[in-house]
Amino acid sequence: MIITSTANEQVKTIRKLRERKYRHETNTFYIEGIRIVREAMATPKRIQTLIVAPDLLRSARAEDALVEITALDVPVLEVSPLVFESFGLKENPQGLAAVVKQSWAKLTAVKPEEMGLWVGLDSIADPGNLGTIMRTMDAVGAKGIFLVDDCTDPYDPSAVRGSMGAVFSVEFIKTTAQEMANWKRAKNVPMFGTSDAAKTGYQEVAYPKNMILMMGSERQGLQQELMRCCDEMVAIPMTGKSDSLNLAVATAVTLYEIYNQQRKNEAA
Amino acid sequence: MIITSTANEQVKTIRKLRERKYRHETNTFYIEGIRIVREAMATPKRIQTLIVAPDLLRSARAEDALVEITALDVPVLEVSPLVFESFGLKENPQGLAAVVKQSWAKLTAVKPEEMGLWVGLDSIADPGNLGTIMRTMDAVGAKGIFLVDDCTDPYDPSAVRGSMGAVFSVEFIKTTAQEMANWKRAKNVPMFGTSDAAKTGYQEVAYPKNMILMMGSERQGLQQELMRCCDEMVAIPMTGKSDSLNLAVATAVTLYEIYNQQRKNEAA
Repeated sequence: MIITSTANEQVKTIRKLRERKYRHETNTFYIEGIRIVREAMATPKRIQTLIVAPDLLRSARAEDALVEITALDVPVLEVSPLVFESFGLKENPQGLAAVVKQSWAKLTAVKPEEMGLWVGLDSIADPGNLGTIMRTMDAVGAKGIFLVDDCTDPYDPSAVRGSMGAVFSVEFIKTTAQEMANWKRAKNVPMFGTSDAAKTGYQEVAYPKNMILMMGSERQGLQQELMRCCDEMVAIPMTGKSDSLNLAVATAVTLYEIYNQQRKNEAA
Repeated sequence: MIITSTANEQVKTIRKLRERKYRHETNTFYIEGIRIVREAMATPKRIQTLIVAPDLLRSARAEDALVEITALDVPVLEVSPLVFESFGLKENPQGLAAVVKQSWAKLTAVKPEEMGLWVGLDSIADPGNLGTIMRTMDAVGAKGIFLVDDCTDPYDPSAVRGSMGAVFSVEFIKTTAQEMANWKRAKNVPMFGTSDAAKTGYQEVAYPKNMILMMGSERQGLQQELMRCCDEMVAIPMTGKSDSLNLAVATAVTLYEIYNQQRKNEAA
């Protein structure tokens, strides 16, 4: 049976996933589009409900995805185009969406001697920046993000959209500056932070394989407590009047330096 | 006299600058916030109207700016907080804004032998990406942007906001793929483009001082005509399933490689 009423209880529940509070309570989030639903299919246990609007499913690619996902035995909710559009994430809805379980890792599960490259984000506010950072992390093979203190939600629709599927490949750990500082002291994890006031250029450091790149918030930079944790603070050079880069850009420029060094070391 | 009606004709005219069509017709755009209005003051002739909401001007920094700008002899429009908020660019309005003249350069004014570093953007759609690219260009000292074919507007509020003032330091030239190709053939300007299918890594090329970095649109990449113009196509390496970076990130990673090479050459 196809649901045609936007006032249907289950439909209202899905729309409420726009709100962080409700995502948190249900530990789920909403994804929309063929590409990202196929990414989610790599871990079918995380798909709580598949949402299909048959009248919008025009492309063969969408129907292929549907055949695959039907074979996975997950609950399917069929809705009318009007109901689908009420979820409202995309301008040209493709007719395929899903409600997916969130995934959170714990600090205690991270083994410093084999953790790989992680990013620590201190109180960042913009979900678009967070999504773009995830996408870049996926490209350089970084493993996960420490969301320190009061950060935006990685399962916010803007973060999910900007991540281009990387929301499923990057791990997330919620933590505090205090907890990170204690962990750093206990485990001696290499940490590097960026600041425009640092004396060392970001290319002057030999980055280890297992490490955390710490990035400060859009407005405040890295808090003192976390700066003190860093083995070294590095600066990205800038010319002219500029005193800062966009956060996602600064993270990408530094991540690519780390990745380029790793590729050279592996080739050597 | 302080304007208190949001229906005032001049006030309505300012609100209409949200629309590209109207910005184009008047050759102006709207900026809001203390920092960016001060940036605009570097070229006072471009300020058409300064907009002040005295009841919102709380900070000393804003009043300093106001004293400076009053000395510049530009028309000032005083409005109530309600009217100011109807322009609606920022959540916490600072009470200082301006209508500023757009600036466009011409292809014929660019001298290839001393042009420095430029970016060519092919049909890009997202004004936020464009603003972030301007901000990065300012940081690496790049001179201007060729907006090729149907691009978003650099004077869109999202582009202006994302540029963090770089909208005043970067030059803009509207052009077409055909015109760029002809110009390239006539002047032999060095052009480098990025593509994930390119065989050459972005760090394997020695970039000249005067050159254009060509970047394709978010969805389509660089069109054939422009790829053919490039002296070399380069790829940014990626790991895993990733097949693309955010456009502003890809532009920044490549611009920083070019900038880092230039700094090394100058130091040598």
